[in-house]
Amino acid sequence: MNRTSEKIDVGIVGCGYWGPNLIRNFLSHKGFGQVIGCDLDQSKLERIQQRYASVKVTSDYEDLLGSNKVGAVAIATPVKAHYQLARDALQAGKHVFVEKPFTSSSAEALQLIKLADEKNLTLMVGHTFEYSPPVVKIGELISGGTLGEIYFISSSRVNLGLHRKDVSVIWDLASHDFSIIFSWLKTSPLRITALGKDYVQRGIPDVAFINMEFPSGCVAHVEVSWLAPSKLRRTAVIGSEKMLVYDDTEVMEKVKIYDKGVDYKDPDSFGEFQLSYRAGDIISPQLENYEPLSLEVAHFFECICNGKRPKTDGFSGLRVVQALEAAQSSLENNGHPEVIR
Amino acid sequence: MNRTSEKIDVGIVGCGYWGPNLIRNFLSHKGFGQVIGCDLDQSKLERIQQRYASVKVTSDYEDLLGSNKVGAVAIATPVKAHYQLARDALQAGKHVFVEKPFTSSSAEALQLIKLADEKNLTLMVGHTFEYSPPVVKIGELISGGTLGEIYFISSSRVNLGLHRKDVSVIWDLASHDFSIIFSWLKTSPLRITALGKDYVQRGIPDVAFINMEFPSGCVAHVEVSWLAPSKLRRTAVIGSEKMLVYDDTEVMEKVKIYDKGVDYKDPDSFGEFQLSYRAGDIISPQLENYEPLSLEVAHFFECICNGKRPKTDGFSGLRVVQALEAAQSSLENNGHPEVIR
Amino acid sequence: MNRTSEKIDVGIVGCGYWGPNLIRNFLSHKGFGQVIGCDLDQSKLERIQQRYASVKVTSDYEDLLGSNKVGAVAIATPVKAHYQLARDALQAGKHVFVEKPFTSSSAEALQLIKLADEKNLTLMVGHTFEYSPPVVKIGELISGGTLGEIYFISSSRVNLGLHRKDVSVIWDLASHDFSIIFSWLKTSPLRITALGKDYVQRGIPDVAFINMEFPSGCVAHVEVSWLAPSKLRRTAVIGSEKMLVYDDTEVMEKVKIYDKGVDYKDPDSFGEFQLSYRAGDIISPQLENYEPLSLEVAHFFECICNGKRPKTDGFSGLRVVQALEAAQSSLENNGHPEVIR
Amino acid sequence: MNRTSEKIDVGIVGCGYWGPNLIRNFLSHKGFGQVIGCDLDQSKLERIQQRYASVKVTSDYEDLLGSNKVGAVAIATPVKAHYQLARDALQAGKHVFVEKPFTSSSAEALQLIKLADEKNLTLMVGHTFEYSPPVVKIGELISGGTLGEIYFISSSRVNLGLHRKDVSVIWDLASHDFSIIFSWLKTSPLRITALGKDYVQRGIPDVAFINMEFPSGCVAHVEVSWLAPSKLRRTAVIGSEKMLVYDDTEVMEKVKIYDKGVDYKDPDSFGEFQLSYRAGDIISPQLENYEPLSLEVAHFFECICNGKRPKTDGFSGLRVVQALEAAQSSLENNGHPEVIR
Repeated sequence: MNRTSEKIDVGIVGCGYWGPNLIRNFLSHKGFGQVIGCDLDQSKLERIQQRYASVKVTSDYEDLLGSNKVGAVAIATPVKAHYQLARDALQAGKHVFVEKPFTSSSAEALQLIKLADEKNLTLMVGHTFEYSPPVVKIGELISGGTLGEIYFISSSRVNLGLHRKDVSVIWDLASHDFSIIFSWLKTSPLRITALGKDYVQRGIPDVAFINMEFPSGCVAHVEVSWLAPSKLRRTAVIGSEKMLVYDDTEVMEKVKIYDKGVDYKDPDSFGEFQLSYRAGDIISPQLENYEPLSLEVAHFFECICNGKRPKTDGFSGLRVVQALEAAQSSLENNGHPEVIR
Repeated sequence: MNRTSEKIDVGIVGCGYWGPNLIRNFLSHKGFGQVIGCDLDQSKLERIQQRYASVKVTSDYEDLLGSNKVGAVAIATPVKAHYQLARDALQAGKHVFVEKPFTSSSAEALQLIKLADEKNLTLMVGHTFEYSPPVVKIGELISGGTLGEIYFISSSRVNLGLHRKDVSVIWDLASHDFSIIFSWLKTSPLRITALGKDYVQRGIPDVAFINMEFPSGCVAHVEVSWLAPSKLRRTAVIGSEKMLVYDDTEVMEKVKIYDKGVDYKDPDSFGEFQLSYRAGDIISPQLENYEPLSLEVAHFFECICNGKRPKTDGFSGLRVVQALEAAQSSLENNGHPEVIR
Repeated sequence: MNRTSEKIDVGIVGCGYWGPNLIRNFLSHKGFGQVIGCDLDQSKLERIQQRYASVKVTSDYEDLLGSNKVGAVAIATPVKAHYQLARDALQAGKHVFVEKPFTSSSAEALQLIKLADEKNLTLMVGHTFEYSPPVVKIGELISGGTLGEIYFISSSRVNLGLHRKDVSVIWDLASHDFSIIFSWLKTSPLRITALGKDYVQRGIPDVAFINMEFPSGCVAHVEVSWLAPSKLRRTAVIGSEKMLVYDDTEVMEKVKIYDKGVDYKDPDSFGEFQLSYRAGDIISPQLENYEPLSLEVAHFFECICNGKRPKTDGFSGLRVVQALEAAQSSLENNGHPEVIR
Repeated sequence: MNRTSEKIDVGIVGCGYWGPNLIRNFLSHKGFGQVIGCDLDQSKLERIQQRYASVKVTSDYEDLLGSNKVGAVAIATPVKAHYQLARDALQAGKHVFVEKPFTSSSAEALQLIKLADEKNLTLMVGHTFEYSPPVVKIGELISGGTLGEIYFISSSRVNLGLHRKDVSVIWDLASHDFSIIFSWLKTSPLRITALGKDYVQRGIPDVAFINMEFPSGCVAHVEVSWLAPSKLRRTAVIGSEKMLVYDDTEVMEKVKIYDKGVDYKDPDSFGEFQLSYRAGDIISPQLENYEPLSLEVAHFFECICNGKRPKTDGFSGLRVVQALEAAQSSLENNGHPEVIR
């Protein structure tokens, strides 16, 4: 597939829970042409056609890959199938978009990165939150130095949610926090510890408390659970200059910036050191209003056309998978700290 | 000092931040007679006398202990002085009330327990929250089986708070969560991991994330910080039958009980297992309205008189100190899990 | 049109903002057969056909009414067209569903009621909130006596909302509160006063404060506005036994019942009377989870089939229109009280 | 009493609920010398002396007024006694501070204003909220034009509160909203309507809904009640440029300013007019942190010393009493609008 400005036909593989959202967004982007839904389950394909009359469907992945007109594939299947589907697509010369978490293992992730590189194809991971208005805004505040040095981040993502049967709550929910936090800090953690438990389904942890340390000295805590009485989507970012809270359950004030902090003054001559506490206005910035997935799809198109590296490229997907592996390993090892290589 | 029904004179040692609250509550309990404030700092004693004309003051602890009329001593000094002051009081035959955290080390705690036992004196630790209406109510709900099996507990105790110069945020704030959680579960944790950092004062951690595992399989997470934009005092308790949230910053609805949960059904014949989700009414129980410290002082009096073991006795103080030691040790050891003996 | 158990074809007149919701719900009810969208604006008809392939469309209302297979018509046009469209449909022998507010005047409402009666046809008004889970629940609590005697009701329905160009905020928003409150109290108010202003568009009030008195002595206050910084949908109901708050912006706790009140005791012999204050648990009842409009459409079908009078019949629509007229008249008359005949 | 810079002895008349707060604040202001509590009830005087050893007490008001050393009197009795006590104090040459509501009638208020003027004495009314940080801040925002033209104000002041036996909820609670709103708008209303009811004590309304119109075209609504399930202290101010919400029950964000509004554009040539909606940042300004009463007492002292007119002078008290009379009259007259002369 050449990088062209023609319309690109795109296949969406996996038409269950999330796939239809991809289909809807690919349909409404002018750069993409025919949208094709692909799933082994006929009933899902039928539902797609009822809702989106212009979408074609197929249960034959090879057929999809065999079509010259299809320039890109988006994969929204269970995680364990990501690697093979993405590999086949890359080998068939398609640009590939993979839903998060990228792959089941970092080894798989590395192979896909290498393959896309060899083939000079766009490989993008669907870390949707990184395209959402509050996460983008906070990223700008951090990069721009508004918060000062980032001391620590504490995040809770819990509610009585659907228990997944294929992956733990870490792979399901913490993958969001990992991609968000790593993008803000522009780095991976050095060390991870995790404590978790499998209360409802044996072998599949449904609650986890994860601690991470970053090279800068920043630490982060992530709590995820499918067992909680009320929904929390709350992330506090504590900086030396300002602090903020990002609450994704809020409708109007998702981000609040607090002009608060502690100033440390070295002792004069003999005296004790002094701490002074600052408190100022609280500001909830106006955020742009768009669906993150539409921005994500537009970014995928742009990267395909001009060959630039996606914001959420394979390495972005890889570092999240590495952290998920480390967290899982610590969890299975009684909370022993795992060092990320 | 005999266990009598006469009025008991009581000395309060340490008249700084917390001592005056003890003085006020001892003054208003009819079982106690003369209240004597004791501090090395004359200005603090003067302030006490201005506010409480009937309180006597002294800067001589030995003098206080030498008085035959003084039957009890309450210690509200910095932690490092607790052991010696309590030991001297017990040796002088006084009943002793020690503020939390009980002692600087578990070794000290054990010695005080032994000494009180030998002398047949009441030794009580000031875990005030265990006497507060919401904590008592939740304890009853847990003991009574309303929540079912306790799966996990997650607690946050953070705000932009006064940095202490003598102890870390763990000893300052997590001691509350530890005493609350251990009293609810009626046990200590097996294993603790902690991650923390000292951002403002070198050597004194001001944020910590602590994970604990209990013999029953229950896990608990405690987040404490002196660096946070807004005050959180929120504890979620997740049980197999019900879930609850205790938010101490709420005025009217400090405790909310959610009739929510997941039911696991074993697969019939060939089928997959089924999970069904329950959701029912949310109830915020009416709580009694009293100052916890007044109940605590009344309980101290009652234990002195009838010789019964305080609800928050030396062992209660000891297990909190053991957990604080373990958390501190894990924190200093990169989050390595610490086993509590 | 006979009352039968065959499928009933239905025409939806007015396919702008609200019409498509009616179409979607008529489509998914098994009692209705062919759904036909009717609008003078071709672009709206095209949009309907894109979204609902099985819906037929027409811009010719007479054609729609001329069809023998069409048994019912639902009217979702601007208010001023309601009367004529409904009258023509009834005269053509169709059962009629009219969106709220029912008509532009009480005279029109009375004529439609009379005509439907003569023709023995179902005439139903779309007071959707009366079919919503929280409103139904509160109605049951009031009827069942749980709240005791209803003292007063205070309701706020405000936010920075779309300014309508055809009707004032009273006809647009207060019509909801009126239908809800009158259904709870099973009566109309005796007297209404209203204060309002037209800040943005001359002649079209965008804020109004309305007071009402009911035969029982109950009073109600309704605040409506298109000019407010944040969304309020809050109704407090104060009874002699209990009080409740219905907050429609809440996701989980839309209704909260407070076991609170004041008990008045007559004076003993010489003494003063005594007031004692009660406070108990707060309960947020689990509500059913369905779309009110689906229940409304099902109720319309049921009334067509068995000839029973709809819960929100013409008289229900009439008393809301009468109150709207009175409120508007008071507003235009400097807040002078208007008596409803 | 001359206007001097010597310490001024002050008598506080009425030592029940509110008097002790006045005593505490007069005690801690350096301009005032001896503080004397005055009440007919000996038990109240005893309680004062227990708490404030340096305060003298008397049950003889004439004695208090007879003392040359007493330069000022503060009156915190039930409203009906205000007039006579204040008149006697002014006639005895004392500066006078009267708690709100100023008097039982506007006639009384006018006489006190006249008398203070003749005697060249300071007469100040205790509209405490006008000295509170959020009310002062909002006043500055309004005067400074930040909000643009003030369209309307809507205020709720309700909770399950102590029923007073001497005055209605209007005189008790709405007096706060009246003083706040009139100070912000720097004017009285032209017209008032009120609806209210006496549910618990016959003859003493415990809920009222009050509407007001101001010369500028601004309208205000005030809801007050002693019967409500939860505490509301919420005032929304809607301006042409910005909107704000003042919530006095909030701890950290009492004032929130919303950069929101509607812009009206006149139609170009033939077209329809256009409305465009603005939304920007939300700002919660940092407020000063002091007890309003301490500022009030300092202001009283300053006015005594330099002869300047208090911010809350007799006219400020008068216009609130006039509005209370009008609201009461409308309430007794079925909500008929009352014009304020």
